[in-house]
Amino acid sequence: MKVLPPYLGAAYYPEDWPLDKIDEDIALMKEAGINVVRVGEFAWSRMEPEEGVYDFQWLHTVVNKLAEAGIAVIMCTPTCTPPIWLVEKYPEVLVVHDDGTRAQHGARRHACPNNRVYRQYCEKIVTKLAEEFGNDENVIGWQIDNEMYPPRGRGCCCPTCHEKFKDTMRQQFGTIENLNRTWGTDLWSQTYQSFEQLPIPRSDTWHHPSLLTAWMNFQSDSYIEFTKVQVDILHRLAKQPVGTDMMPVNGLNYYKISQVLDVVQFNHYNSMENLWQAAFWMDFIRPLKQVPFWNTETQTCWNGSTTANGYKEKGFCRVNSWLPIALGGEANLYWLWRAHWSGQELMHGSVISSSGRPLHIFDEVKEVSEGFRKAGEFLNNTRPVKSGLAVHFSGYAWWLFEFQPMVNGFRYADKMMNAVYRPLMEAQLRPDIIDPAASLEDYKVILSPFLPTLEESGLSERIKNWVYNGGTWIVGPLSDIRTIHATKYVDAPFGYLEDWGKVYCKYQIPGDPRDFIVQWKDDHTSRGSIWYDGFETRGAEPIAVYTEGPLSGLAAVTRCEMGKGQIIILGTMPTKEDFQRLLLNVAKEAGILPVVASSNVLAVPRSGKAGSGMVVLEIENRPGKLTLEREMIDIITGNVYKGDMDIPPYSAMVLVEK
Amino acid sequence: MKVLPPYLGAAYYPEDWPLDKIDEDIALMKEAGINVVRVGEFAWSRMEPEEGVYDFQWLHTVVNKLAEAGIAVIMCTPTCTPPIWLVEKYPEVLVVHDDGTRAQHGARRHACPNNRVYRQYCEKIVTKLAEEFGNDENVIGWQIDNEMYPPRGRGCCCPTCHEKFKDTMRQQFGTIENLNRTWGTDLWSQTYQSFEQLPIPRSDTWHHPSLLTAWMNFQSDSYIEFTKVQVDILHRLAKQPVGTDMMPVNGLNYYKISQVLDVVQFNHYNSMENLWQAAFWMDFIRPLKQVPFWNTETQTCWNGSTTANGYKEKGFCRVNSWLPIALGGEANLYWLWRAHWSGQELMHGSVISSSGRPLHIFDEVKEVSEGFRKAGEFLNNTRPVKSGLAVHFSGYAWWLFEFQPMVNGFRYADKMMNAVYRPLMEAQLRPDIIDPAASLEDYKVILSPFLPTLEESGLSERIKNWVYNGGTWIVGPLSDIRTIHATKYVDAPFGYLEDWGKVYCKYQIPGDPRDFIVQWKDDHTSRGSIWYDGFETRGAEPIAVYTEGPLSGLAAVTRCEMGKGQIIILGTMPTKEDFQRLLLNVAKEAGILPVVASSNVLAVPRSGKAGSGMVVLEIENRPGKLTLEREMIDIITGNVYKGDMDIPPYSAMVLVEK
Amino acid sequence: MKVLPPYLGAAYYPEDWPLDKIDEDIALMKEAGINVVRVGEFAWSRMEPEEGVYDFQWLHTVVNKLAEAGIAVIMCTPTCTPPIWLVEKYPEVLVVHDDGTRAQHGARRHACPNNRVYRQYCEKIVTKLAEEFGNDENVIGWQIDNEMYPPRGRGCCCPTCHEKFKDTMRQQFGTIENLNRTWGTDLWSQTYQSFEQLPIPRSDTWHHPSLLTAWMNFQSDSYIEFTKVQVDILHRLAKQPVGTDMMPVNGLNYYKISQVLDVVQFNHYNSMENLWQAAFWMDFIRPLKQVPFWNTETQTCWNGSTTANGYKEKGFCRVNSWLPIALGGEANLYWLWRAHWSGQELMHGSVISSSGRPLHIFDEVKEVSEGFRKAGEFLNNTRPVKSGLAVHFSGYAWWLFEFQPMVNGFRYADKMMNAVYRPLMEAQLRPDIIDPAASLEDYKVILSPFLPTLEESGLSERIKNWVYNGGTWIVGPLSDIRTIHATKYVDAPFGYLEDWGKVYCKYQIPGDPRDFIVQWKDDHTSRGSIWYDGFETRGAEPIAVYTEGPLSGLAAVTRCEMGKGQIIILGTMPTKEDFQRLLLNVAKEAGILPVVASSNVLAVPRSGKAGSGMVVLEIENRPGKLTLEREMIDIITGNVYKGDMDIPPYSAMVLVEK
Repeated sequence: MKVLPPYLGAAYYPEDWPLDKIDEDIALMKEAGINVVRVGEFAWSRMEPEEGVYDFQWLHTVVNKLAEAGIAVIMCTPTCTPPIWLVEKYPEVLVVHDDGTRAQHGARRHACPNNRVYRQYCEKIVTKLAEEFGNDENVIGWQIDNEMYPPRGRGCCCPTCHEKFKDTMRQQFGTIENLNRTWGTDLWSQTYQSFEQLPIPRSDTWHHPSLLTAWMNFQSDSYIEFTKVQVDILHRLAKQPVGTDMMPVNGLNYYKISQVLDVVQFNHYNSMENLWQAAFWMDFIRPLKQVPFWNTETQTCWNGSTTANGYKEKGFCRVNSWLPIALGGEANLYWLWRAHWSGQELMHGSVISSSGRPLHIFDEVKEVSEGFRKAGEFLNNTRPVKSGLAVHFSGYAWWLFEFQPMVNGFRYADKMMNAVYRPLMEAQLRPDIIDPAASLEDYKVILSPFLPTLEESGLSERIKNWVYNGGTWIVGPLSDIRTIHATKYVDAPFGYLEDWGKVYCKYQIPGDPRDFIVQWKDDHTSRGSIWYDGFETRGAEPIAVYTEGPLSGLAAVTRCEMGKGQIIILGTMPTKEDFQRLLLNVAKEAGILPVVASSNVLAVPRSGKAGSGMVVLEIENRPGKLTLEREMIDIITGNVYKGDMDIPPYSAMVLVEK
Repeated sequence: MKVLPPYLGAAYYPEDWPLDKIDEDIALMKEAGINVVRVGEFAWSRMEPEEGVYDFQWLHTVVNKLAEAGIAVIMCTPTCTPPIWLVEKYPEVLVVHDDGTRAQHGARRHACPNNRVYRQYCEKIVTKLAEEFGNDENVIGWQIDNEMYPPRGRGCCCPTCHEKFKDTMRQQFGTIENLNRTWGTDLWSQTYQSFEQLPIPRSDTWHHPSLLTAWMNFQSDSYIEFTKVQVDILHRLAKQPVGTDMMPVNGLNYYKISQVLDVVQFNHYNSMENLWQAAFWMDFIRPLKQVPFWNTETQTCWNGSTTANGYKEKGFCRVNSWLPIALGGEANLYWLWRAHWSGQELMHGSVISSSGRPLHIFDEVKEVSEGFRKAGEFLNNTRPVKSGLAVHFSGYAWWLFEFQPMVNGFRYADKMMNAVYRPLMEAQLRPDIIDPAASLEDYKVILSPFLPTLEESGLSERIKNWVYNGGTWIVGPLSDIRTIHATKYVDAPFGYLEDWGKVYCKYQIPGDPRDFIVQWKDDHTSRGSIWYDGFETRGAEPIAVYTEGPLSGLAAVTRCEMGKGQIIILGTMPTKEDFQRLLLNVAKEAGILPVVASSNVLAVPRSGKAGSGMVVLEIENRPGKLTLEREMIDIITGNVYKGDMDIPPYSAMVLVEK
Repeated sequence: MKVLPPYLGAAYYPEDWPLDKIDEDIALMKEAGINVVRVGEFAWSRMEPEEGVYDFQWLHTVVNKLAEAGIAVIMCTPTCTPPIWLVEKYPEVLVVHDDGTRAQHGARRHACPNNRVYRQYCEKIVTKLAEEFGNDENVIGWQIDNEMYPPRGRGCCCPTCHEKFKDTMRQQFGTIENLNRTWGTDLWSQTYQSFEQLPIPRSDTWHHPSLLTAWMNFQSDSYIEFTKVQVDILHRLAKQPVGTDMMPVNGLNYYKISQVLDVVQFNHYNSMENLWQAAFWMDFIRPLKQVPFWNTETQTCWNGSTTANGYKEKGFCRVNSWLPIALGGEANLYWLWRAHWSGQELMHGSVISSSGRPLHIFDEVKEVSEGFRKAGEFLNNTRPVKSGLAVHFSGYAWWLFEFQPMVNGFRYADKMMNAVYRPLMEAQLRPDIIDPAASLEDYKVILSPFLPTLEESGLSERIKNWVYNGGTWIVGPLSDIRTIHATKYVDAPFGYLEDWGKVYCKYQIPGDPRDFIVQWKDDHTSRGSIWYDGFETRGAEPIAVYTEGPLSGLAAVTRCEMGKGQIIILGTMPTKEDFQRLLLNVAKEAGILPVVASSNVLAVPRSGKAGSGMVVLEIENRPGKLTLEREMIDIITGNVYKGDMDIPPYSAMVLVEK
């Protein structure tokens, strides 16, 4: 009997438990309604206890027992934690930090992605694992390694990585003169005579931003290449879809890595206060691939490594479990099923305790599994409706702002979430969060705030065409201010915006230590934030104008047409209210109609061959409101609603049009 | 003429001063009433200026001059500061920090306790020193080294220590399989194939808690072994009692080291605000040995290394000097007699300044010495009366919580002092603070809060028998939750408590970010703190019950009988008031009768062949109250008191029954 | 046509720009009124792209173009940033930090000042540069290197520096016994047997203050020697005055380095809130040499490295540009002319943007340049009038207090600025800030607070004679408490003060955690701060007396005559009001008459062959007041003033007596 989505599952570490406990586990899994578990993640030393000596019997036993219980398996490659015999024989496989120290056994994510020996041993264990489970009917997918990102800011700084970085630069620039010219190394006598001279940009030195950006990009590519090695083996030997579990951090280019994967996997541990941030990330990973994503990790009731922290109130487990389903995923897995009895991370919340006792959220888990079952057919035969709205979000931008925040205290991801995404979300203008490389064709309105370079993946040309063909593009502040190499343009503060947006930027001023007043077309005034471009209009229409300081009289926000579309330039970041007002107007013009609901309600319309409906969640643990245009039935409870309805705290509903 | 206790003294560094200043010093010491000084502490380079060239003449001169003035000497071994010729010839004697750097000459506590060469040179200098002063009538005791603890968190990480650690593990576990099984190394592929592979757990890596705990225990044992080497020499060549000055920090197992020593020595530098913490430590060191302890260091009027800080108000010097005497010690020594004129620590408070001028507390020192003299006979012939109450306090627990605090912000020693000891003390329920290895037979009531493992020193068996024989044991929260190897039990959240305490722990919840309400038997409600165990009673009586959240209806505090005794389990840490109320009831039942006094008064009853009485101190610099059951005389002033009496700020009295 | 001061200029980096941009720059410079630019600072790799291959043609082109535009040049030696070929061939030229890591290419200030190879290459490039531009009529001065100071606290810790330090100590002390005796190394067995054993005092070890001070002094001397090498070449080959741009930090002995230089150059980046601190530094650098100083760097409108921060309100650029002129300088240069397009420091405020657009302060720059022109003749033919008041300020004291702050939170430079200089300045008692080595003859009143040693540069003898000849000396607190070797005096708390000041210091108490009350002669009371000396008077007159605590009845401030002069000892630091009252009285007695103005007005009288007048600035962006004794004309506006006049926010005037 094939297990069908939606999947409700958990991470499972049978390598650390005797068989009788495993039987106890599986009985409780069935009771909870769990239908998938993730295994093998760090179990290399159980799979290959000595070099070349393999043992998968224990794992087959577990997988078979699970199969008998109707529980599917996501199999993980264990490459995140090389066994002691490997690091002892080849210490060079260990990451070298940028202070010159070598990582130690006993940790995880401590092997160099570029090390040839490490890669060979990874290939061997992954090949073996794929041979063992690549055709196992109960295995429904693969997870490669775990939570990959360059460790400690600069990633691996070993000689292998250094050499490979220099080779990468050699390939990218051809000649060192070209690199010097492109990066502008004449200042501070930074000019290189050969690629051999390029240093690893250590964090204790204030380095050239072009070098830093190139290094981080190289680190990202190294992990993607490392992943690709495993993907190729699995594609050759296994029939199941392959992914790697990504995290809400900046480390890898997730767009690029998703190109080589079959399914997007994602881990998050958001708190009650910032559950909406998980929504941001799911709105980001959903567009990465056509197939529904898998939420591979989330907490049940609290986080914990050395401390148990962040107890979640009643109902959180419910709504947090539904969140990925609402936003286009088809799996939610908890970390972890049974708490560890030894080692690190002893204090983490789980479904059952290390002594096998259900935690207080056990009934919520059961409730969720029942809901998944009831809504399964509708969910599996519909997809979230595209809103036509998108926001650009770029890991490359994140690096640029990390090395050069432009304004004191500016943190790219925070601002994208708090000042851009959350106001949209609360206004029910739910966007796709897209990488600059993503196709633009599904969208009527695109926002590109804080996007320092338009040169990523040829975006400048694509966005220009998209606007010409009718798109509404809201861009800035701090967008189009850098080349792809982290340098400035020298003929204007922007690469393209003045020309396209029909403005001339007369003055620029940072929003530190204070903010300036702007007056909007309806004459109300408010303060901008973060950054201030003051524009003379050269064909554009001023939408908001500065009324004080050196910028007085200059435009802060402008609009102009380009082809069939229009460009709205934000010279400063407006208040939340002004931003929402602007966006609601633009969306309305573009025919984008938000759901009518209070700001704490996440309501995601779906449609497909199973009809139309919407998944509705309350995500702030307070009463919410929703207005239905037509009568709908909650297929979990069977209740029927119409018109204005109450959305109770932390509730989850699957409303279907009758 | 033999100098008798109580000793009032000071640290003295004659190695840094010419003879005429020493004569000046001794004259002022006599004026102050000082009767003991501590010398030699760091003076290795004066004793052995070149390898094998010894010079003790200057020290004999000083000791003899002191003897003539009736001032006894505590002689210190100078091993804390090896001379330059030693570290230059054998750089390997220097500590290696866990970042790989080697300590530098010019510091102190910077030599490896396990280094064979260092130990040999220590043996030589200690032997010589013992030969010189082991039979000196004016030397009344020995201090080994100074303030020993593993430096910088992880202690010495040199190759010698690494090898010895691996040997220690080899001896402890026999086979590596046993270690793997015991520690549970299967997670994260941490499994070892041989003891040779065990790493030093560097602080920059998130290491396995079992490894960390074993490493710190090994460090502690190394210093104890290092101490033992010196003790053996001194026991062979010297007739005086031997100790080493310990500090109110976690580093060595003080119970274990005290077994090899003759007298407990202790240094503290508490502020006006936390003088009661010094009482905690003295209540801890008093039970370590039968003989009275020596308070070897405390400040006179302010602390100071590079800054003079923490000026103490009038009277503090008095009460701080009396504190060790009140709590069972027989010596109080200031650090330091005369302020340094060069080197580090120039700014520290002292008795006289570096230019030989008495500080403003000089008259208080005189007053204390007169009081000591007047009360001497009574004090020397009585001992503090045991209250029958004890609290477990464990350095091992301290490590476990350091590597795994369980709840955000939980600091073991702080909680033991603030949430456990201070409420008891303020209720005049003055306990012995005892190591888990200590004998239980003197006690009627024992508290074991935050004691993660009962496996230390066979405590589980001993405490069980003790309860069966009539003891009242108050245990938890966060007690009995780990094996001695820092792993969890797998059949229940506790090792023993459910069985003994007749409860079943249904749910556990961390007290982060909020606390839960409990209702007590008298129906009043309050909030718990830190941690929440929710119990079903299986024969126990619920004393307090949760009234909200997932724990609603479960017991928070339970009581049950076991043999002739009883067990009270705290599932959460009550408020101060609830905790005091509970303890006062339990104490009353056990026949423990507290002194009647205000919370700022420390009143320690004494008895012995010199009769009965009590030492009374006010330790918070505000007026206090004490109620006497019968008439008593203050043998310092001759004043007679009865019934309710005022205790003036920072006063010290020795009340004796007439 | 020779360019005359006052100079208004900017840092310029033509090495990073093509010729057409340079033409654009020069046109805008002319428009702005810029008459000097600073070039070459970091351009070694453009000047010597390969070893021994020189290219100055591009620089001649720039200098000549500037000359044609009437813009003079300050030529910088580029030694701060060695080219990659040098560090690649000789990695040993790179600084070694005190953690053992070697600095990396890509930074600046990362070469060892003592490295022989580095010095040779510096000599070669400086020689070449001097040959090229030493007789260029358009070059008006030289700047050596850039912002020199020992990096990262301890400076360069390479083997070369270590050896040289040991040699320096060998030369200074002759025998190791002398060093041991002088430093007092007997404590902690720190005694050395040979100079070879002296360690580098790493910051991770708590080192002997005498060693630390000697090390920092050695570092300072190393940079001065390094500078001297370049000065000698330039003096031989170039006809223009030579300086090096200094910073408001403690690193080099600025008095000593100024002895080998021709002109003092200074960089500052003060905020709106602490612009007066720039005045402190200018009052410090003005007395260093007879010739007017050059303010070589200051921001135009905001600072910026990776963030643009600290936007300055309208008028700040004006008043900040006038500040050095007012205080005796003859040049103000902005950092920078045109913002960088690549590399580090992209976000810094400038005169024109990287895309060649004037910033919003462009008109203020023009206004300043016009003002400079109008006032030039008067300014060039007058000098600020000496007030007769001086305050000692010592980099050596700064080190002593850094290694030993004496009291918690005491920061020497902060206190000198906030508690000493600012109160004086606000009372219009504008002092020279002088090094202990400076001549005393120009002064009637000298303050020496927080000057731990009087042994610097023979100050004790010179100040004694100066008092005898009629000077009024206000000294303390925390003065005369250390020898030049950072040790204490052993016969009294002071070296000289008790004898000279006719007092006996009975008690000393730190001002932590609280302050004590003093009563002044007029019976008003207030609290002291920082430190408390309690004096018995032995011929001195008590001016303020303690009325509480152990110091009660002792004098806090005393006065006594010595020869024709007097000594006022501050035993504690009075309140701002008491300090001002005391100083105004003393100044009045000494015939020092302050300008009558509000505290926010900086009014600096000038006189010379062009007559008398004053430069008046408002430095706090709020209205101010000034009272003129006689009618004066503002030669910038032509306005005439008399009696009470308003000083508008951020205004600058040059008032001249008619």
